[in-house]
Parts: sequence; C-alpha cells; structure tokens
Amino acid sequence: MAAIKNILGFKASAKSKNILQGITAAENRTTFYPATRSEINEAMTLAAGAFQTYRHFTGQQKAMFLRAIAEEIEFLGEKLVQTAMLESGLPEGRITGERGRTCGQLRLFADYLVEGSWVEAVIDQGNPERQPLPKPDIRRMLVPTGPAVVFTASNFPLAFSTAGGDTASALAAGCPVVVKAHEAHPATNELVALAIQKAAKRTGMPEGVFSSLNGDYKLGQALVKHPLTASVAFTGSHRGGRALFDLAGKRPNPIPVFAEMGSVNPIFILPNVLETQSEQVAEQIAASVTLGAGQFCTNPGLVFVPEEWAEDFAQQLLAALSQVQPQCMLNQRIFESYLGSLQQVKEQHQVAILYEGEMQGAPFIRPSVGLAKAAVFLKNPHLQEEVFGPFTLLVSYAAANSLEQIANALQGQLTASVFAEKHELPHYQNLLNALQNLSGRLILNAVPTGVEVCHAMQHGGPYPATTDSRFTSVGTAAIRRFVRPVAWQNFPGALLPEALQDGNPLGIWRMVDGAFLK
Amino acid sequence: MAAIKNILGFKASAKSKNILQGITAAENRTTFYPATRSEINEAMTLAAGAFQTYRHFTGQQKAMFLRAIAEEIEFLGEKLVQTAMLESGLPEGRITGERGRTCGQLRLFADYLVEGSWVEAVIDQGNPERQPLPKPDIRRMLVPTGPAVVFTASNFPLAFSTAGGDTASALAAGCPVVVKAHEAHPATNELVALAIQKAAKRTGMPEGVFSSLNGDYKLGQALVKHPLTASVAFTGSHRGGRALFDLAGKRPNPIPVFAEMGSVNPIFILPNVLETQSEQVAEQIAASVTLGAGQFCTNPGLVFVPEEWAEDFAQQLLAALSQVQPQCMLNQRIFESYLGSLQQVKEQHQVAILYEGEMQGAPFIRPSVGLAKAAVFLKNPHLQEEVFGPFTLLVSYAAANSLEQIANALQGQLTASVFAEKHELPHYQNLLNALQNLSGRLILNAVPTGVEVCHAMQHGGPYPATTDSRFTSVGTAAIRRFVRPVAWQNFPGALLPEALQDGNPLGIWRMVDGAFLK
Repeated sequence: MAAIKNILGFKASAKSKNILQGITAAENRTTFYPATRSEINEAMTLAAGAFQTYRHFTGQQKAMFLRAIAEEIEFLGEKLVQTAMLESGLPEGRITGERGRTCGQLRLFADYLVEGSWVEAVIDQGNPERQPLPKPDIRRMLVPTGPAVVFTASNFPLAFSTAGGDTASALAAGCPVVVKAHEAHPATNELVALAIQKAAKRTGMPEGVFSSLNGDYKLGQALVKHPLTASVAFTGSHRGGRALFDLAGKRPNPIPVFAEMGSVNPIFILPNVLETQSEQVAEQIAASVTLGAGQFCTNPGLVFVPEEWAEDFAQQLLAALSQVQPQCMLNQRIFESYLGSLQQVKEQHQVAILYEGEMQGAPFIRPSVGLAKAAVFLKNPHLQEEVFGPFTLLVSYAAANSLEQIANALQGQLTASVFAEKHELPHYQNLLNALQNLSGRLILNAVPTGVEVCHAMQHGGPYPATTDSRFTSVGTAAIRRFVRPVAWQNFPGALLPEALQDGNPLGIWRMVDGAFLK
Repeated sequence: MAAIKNILGFKASAKSKNILQGITAAENRTTFYPATRSEINEAMTLAAGAFQTYRHFTGQQKAMFLRAIAEEIEFLGEKLVQTAMLESGLPEGRITGERGRTCGQLRLFADYLVEGSWVEAVIDQGNPERQPLPKPDIRRMLVPTGPAVVFTASNFPLAFSTAGGDTASALAAGCPVVVKAHEAHPATNELVALAIQKAAKRTGMPEGVFSSLNGDYKLGQALVKHPLTASVAFTGSHRGGRALFDLAGKRPNPIPVFAEMGSVNPIFILPNVLETQSEQVAEQIAASVTLGAGQFCTNPGLVFVPEEWAEDFAQQLLAALSQVQPQCMLNQRIFESYLGSLQQVKEQHQVAILYEGEMQGAPFIRPSVGLAKAAVFLKNPHLQEEVFGPFTLLVSYAAANSLEQIANALQGQLTASVFAEKHELPHYQNLLNALQNLSGRLILNAVPTGVEVCHAMQHGGPYPATTDSRFTSVGTAAIRRFVRPVAWQNFPGALLPEALQDGNPLGIWRMVDGAFLK
C-alpha cells in the first residue's frame, strides 16, 4: 500500500523524504508522509487566505458545506467502516455508531447555522438626546477568530477526529481547519479528509478551508506555534494537552487551546439505591467501564460504595464484568500504557485488585477492578489518576465518612454521577453542591459514557479535565471556542452584518435594548 | 496620617512590619501596610469560604448587595471625590463622572441579575422512547467559577478599580472578589473598600465576599499564584498583564487571566470627509487625545490622514490642541514613562514632531503630535507601540497606499475608527473587513474614548489588546469571564436550580429544545 499523503487544500502533497509508520491496532503496514515545514506553512497560509472569504459566508452556505461533508462520509460506505475497524480495533457497531454521531453532529451544526441565533446579536439603540452625553448606537455579534488547528483523538477515529465535533464547530463558526491527523488512524483520516475536500469543492468553498497533515508530536507543536494559527482544539491525554497549552501560552501572541484531557468521572452510590437496585446499577457500571475497551474520556474510573454494601456490590460488578468478551485496545502503545497504569495501582498500599481479566495476547484485554477504603483513597492522590482502559476503582465509604469531604478532595472532572433513590437525595445536598463545583456535568442514576450531542450539553470541566472550564467540546455551544464578539458603533444599516440590521432580515433571536426579540 | 490597612472580610488588618508609600499624583504622604503572606492567605481562604454560600445566592440577593455598594459609594460624597482627585491628579468633573459610571455599572449589573436570563439556561428535554437509545434530559446553565482576583487600574481610580467593572461583574456572577489595590490610589481604594464592606454587612453577605489588599507587584504575583484563586481580571500595561498571564499559565492548575492591556486605537480618516468637516474631526480627535491627559486605554494613538490633506489637517489638530490647558498626569512615574516613550518616537527615522506642548513642571504636561508617511510607518513596528499619555501619531497615506494593507499590518486593537462621508464608505469594504479582523469595536465618525456601558459593548480585542479576545471587560457580557456552564442530566425538578426547573419559576428567557422561550 502506498504511503498516505497530506491533504493541502484541494491538492495531495508528499514532500517529505521520510516515511513514518502508523501506530494502529492491527499489524497493518499503514505508512504516511509526515508534513514538512513547507507543507505546514502552505496549509496555514491557505487557511488564512480562505478565512478572508469563508468568514463572510452566510449560515446557509456554511450549512450546505457541513451537510455535504456528512453526505460524502456516508458515501464512503463500508470502506470507511472497515478501515476504521482495522486501524482502531473497535467493533463494527461502535464504528457505525460513531459515524452516525459524526454525521448527526455535522447536520446539527448545519441546522444551528440556518437558525442563526448563535451569533448572539445584541443591539443597544442610540439616543442622540441623552444627557449629559448622547448615547451611541452599539451592536455586537460573534465573528470567527481565524484558522483553527484540530488534533484528532486516537479513541474516536470519527466523532472526535477529522470531521468530528471540533472540526464541525470550527467550520460552523467560520474558521478554516487544519487537522493534525493521528498516527493511530492515518488511513481513516485520509478517507474522511478526502470526503471533506470533495464536499468543499462541490459547495464552492475556498481552497484552504480544510487541510489535513500527517505527523508525530513535532507536527502538533509546529502547528500550535505557527503565527497564522488562531485557536487549537485537542482531545487526548493530560500530558499532551498540557504541553500544547503551555506552548500556546509562550507564543508572542498567545492563542486559546481548548484541551479536553479526560477524567476519572466519579460515581457516588448512595445506600438506599443498593437495597433495591444493586444488580442493575452494577450492570450499568460494568457496561460503562468496558464500553470501547474503557477508552472513553467519560469512562467511570472511580465508584464510591457504602462500606456495608461494598462486598455484595463488588461481587455483582465482577459477575457482570466476567461476561465481557476480550476487547481489542486501540494499539500496542495504549495497551502497554494501560498495563503500566494498572501495575502502578497494584503497587499502592492497601489497594486490593479484586478482578483482573486475563490478557488474550496484546492488545486484547479483559477489565480490572480495584478496591480501597475511603480513608486510604483520601490519603493517596495517585488513586485519582486516570487509568486509560477498562479499569475502575471501588472506594468503600463508612457512615462516618463525609461524602462532601471526599468530593472536595477530587480533582476537576468532566462528569460526576450519583446513583440514589429519589427520597434519599435531598439529604445529600452538600454532596451535590460539591460535585457541581468540580465537574462540568452532573448525572443522576445513569453512567457518564454516552455524551448526548445537543444544545444543553456541557462536555468540559475544571482543570485537569480541560484547560478552560468555560467552554465545551460537545454540543452546539462548542462553536464558542472559535468566535469572539465585535461591536459596531454608529454604523448605518447597509454597512452592518445582516444579523445586526434593523428589521432583522435573518429573523434570528436578538437582544434589543435588553429584551429578547425575534 | 496613619498608614492604610488591608480589608480582610469584615476586619481591618495590618500585620506587616514594613510600611510602603503610595505613588500618587500629589506629593501627599499616603502610606500603607503591604499585605503579608498570612493576610493574603486569609483573604483567599475567606473568599473560598464565602463562595460556598454566595454562589447559591439568588439574583435578587446579589442585586441588593450591588445596589448597596453604589449607595455606600455615593454616601461617601465629597470626601471620595477630593481623595481621588488628590491621588490621581484628575479634575473634579472627571472624578464625579467616573463615580457616576461606577455606580451606574453596579446598578446595571443589579438589573441584569434581577432580569436573570444571563445564566443562559438551555433545556433539552429527554425522550425515553427514542431509538436506538433513550434521549436523556439535559439542562445547562452558567455557574460562578470561584474567588476572583481583581487588579485595580491607576488610570481609573473608580470605574476600573475597587468597585469597578471587574468587581461588579465578578460579584454579579457569584464570585467573591479579592482586590489588589493600586499604589496610585491607596486612600481612594480604602474608602471604596470600606463602602463595599459596609454594603456586604448590611445586606447579609458572607464574610470574605470582598477583601482588599495593599502591596506592590509581588502581592499581585502571590494572588495570581494562590491555589484558591479561580480567575483574574486586570487592566493596565502590556508588561504587567502579560507577566500575570504567563504566571497563571504556569500554575499546576492554570486559571484564566483576562488582561486588558490597552492599544493605540487607530483612526482612519477617508478623503471626502475632510472636504467638509476637517475642523470638526480635528477638534474631536484633539479632545479624545487629551481626555484624562491621554491616559485611556482607548486613547487614539494613530491617525491615518490622506497625504493631500495632511498638512491642513495637522494645522487644525494643532490649533485645537493648543487650546488645551496643562494637565496633571497620574503620577511622577507615569509622567517619566511618558517622556521616555516620547523620546523613543523622536529618535525614529523620518518621524517629525509637529507639536510638543511645554512641560509645566512635573507631572503637568501638554499634548504632543508626531507625523510620518505611511511607507515609513509600515517599515517600523516601533511606531505601533502605545505612548501612554496625550500623544498621537499622524500617518499620511498616498492614493497609492492600500488602506487594507496598512490595517493588516496593525496589531490587535480594542477599537478601530473610521471618519468618512456616508457615500464613500462602500468603496472601503476591504478596509472595514480588515479593521473588523483586528479589533473588538468598530466606530464610525466618532472617537474611541467614552466606552458606553451597555449590553452590546465589546471592550476587548485580539492580542496584544487583551489576553483573550473572546471576552469583554465593559458591559454586561463582562460577567462571562467569571462563569462556566454546568449541565444536569436526568435530575428531578426539585433538585435543579430554579433557572432550569419546568414551569420556569424565574420567568427568564431560556432555550428549550432549540427555541427561545420565556
């Protein structure tokens, strides 16, 4: 198989004399041309050029582009599914589900653009008669910030990758995208990148609205440092995300990096719920821990159980987990990293490993479960570290333990879940308050995996879950990472963007003199 | 006069054995106790404690607090005006105007809280019947991030200081505030801090909702590094703002720093407007350049004039400037820094100094004006540096010069203004596009000084104007710097915040299943 090329605007490009090898699940021989300095520069220059026209495109035009991307991805059919399965080791159902999510996301943003209110138009009309000074006419709306660099995620070859949520929201905002392809799925990336290229051509988008470059971490660094990059979106490890965040902060002109770096997503099980539903809860958690071989940023890595129920609940959880077939991890590197993290947990004092599914030959695994007492957990910050893979730590708490105190000891999280009977919840308001303080999403009687793509979703959270808790990378609000407000003062209607003109030609929701109107 | 103490919650505190001297306009002898490490820690601990109750206060409760602050500030009467005048050297009209702005701002945020829609409630109702998976009920709103550190600005002793826009918006968000008082007005700061303390007591706010600490830059660093600090707001120099931004980025858990660092606020004068209104334009610009002795972040430091009009326009500008009485700068340090910056401009090649008002004895000054050709300007990036004080550089452009090219060569700006006849503007769409790209506010036929406090205001802009162009420090949207979204999944109404409950008990605007409803 020929080495995979970079996608530079409407061309393919392979200037490097070296060829690198993908790091995929299967022992395939995918190779790619890493982007050279001149290719990086060309991608960014094309993106900056495209920005000058693309940023003025109407919602309808951008929506057409996003819908065309979804169509082109669906048009890839079985080839895309097979390629992604081969590279990621994920099963067919997961890949087709992820494709559905990816295309659904693109169409959701298309609808959002056509509806149009997302620009947050705010109009404060002037008053020349005001004393002591005339009141100027001020009108504000959101405009795109410029070329966005999107890092694809190894664990979501489609939905958080080439045409995933970051790309969809950046393109919706009016920002051209340069993708840093992941070594974990270069062939999948190429297929989707070509689909986007095709969609861009057939909907009349400017060349450079999308490019995709292959490479290792050095490519990522070069893209974050490039003077034409306006923002960065990243989904992956804490180490990777923090490094890019630090790099962006050291630029002569710092740029925002939204890095979603995963978390342990604690689940608190309250006593009463176990009296009637412990088996169902155990089954839900087992399914969540092993979903996608535990390689989700919302994977529940910590489960707090009342001490008196701990043994029974553990048995139920283990029974459920023992039904899970061996799963393929994304690649050998992630498999080894998982084993290393697991080994570290084992070496901690007073942590028992209750269950360790045997390995079936790398990178195939079965889940593992640890157990510790709350007092031990509170003393050992290492037990809060994410084990990327199908592992969860049960922490048993005594009646004397304050759940609020435990929650306050936790780091920032994407999610925090509570399983409870309705009648016992009001007694745990302090716990709920503490969980609200540390997470982006609070979940009742459900597991954190399965992030709904909708307007109300918040997929983010205090550091170290993300680098900026004020933003989300899932849901329509993800667009805000790529826009900034601009105010126009005393401009005549004809020179204002349509969203701000008198008479509201776009028919969008606007705040006019403090009231929401359409 | 006794040395000024720190305000720690409901107490005064003076633990330092050292006493530092203020850096004020008048040769007064204001001294203060710099905050010690233990006082810094106590202020932050009190703030973190207060946050646990204050963050749950209703809009009505917080509004009462903000209104009480305004009342207490007004109640200080002449004493505050005289103190601020003495410390800042600013004239009475400016100080009373600034007081009005400060109290107006507090009341605007109070109204905003009572109206309540600012929490951006978004509800996506669940659907248990959805295939293939049930749709969860997701509801999102904004919640406060935690204790905010506010740096007061030397050039705005009231409106961007102790109870200024940053404090008002952070308190409105539900974040306790710890103020880093400026050495340029410690006595003014103390008066206002005591007014806030009084307002907090009489409206039943928790101790620690507000504290004010005195010190130099080392205090600022300690506050930004403190583990309990959740966000930082700063208005001041590029050097100061960038240093704090860098420091916050190096924390184990980085926190957002919104630093508004000023800009040169370019004005483009198009040819036709000068045919009929050159004198009025010159007078407006002269007034803007000298407003507050040119010590505004929106001071116009660059004016582009058509070459054929440059000489006439310069004469009109100089005539207007010669009418300006000597003005007192904020303090000796700023005066000397102004002279230094001016000297640097003089030393640049092919820059003429057309007018230099004589000094009347430090820190009194008259304005200065430079002149350079566009070709010279484009070659010399130093000419874009802010001269903090009443100076502006006229840049004459030839018909051959592309205004778009000039605009593209400019750094990020808070504002960009155009003076034009209505009929000539449509020919300059490329210029307007370029200006939109680099600034936070576009102004037509008016000067950038005089930032209206309203919903639609954007006071921010691409770096180096601010550290994050996605936020504003003036207007109600300033609250967004201090909040983050949290989503609740599948929670029963009784356990949801009122803003998210069915039936909309607060009667606020919400987005429900994609539609705006009230």
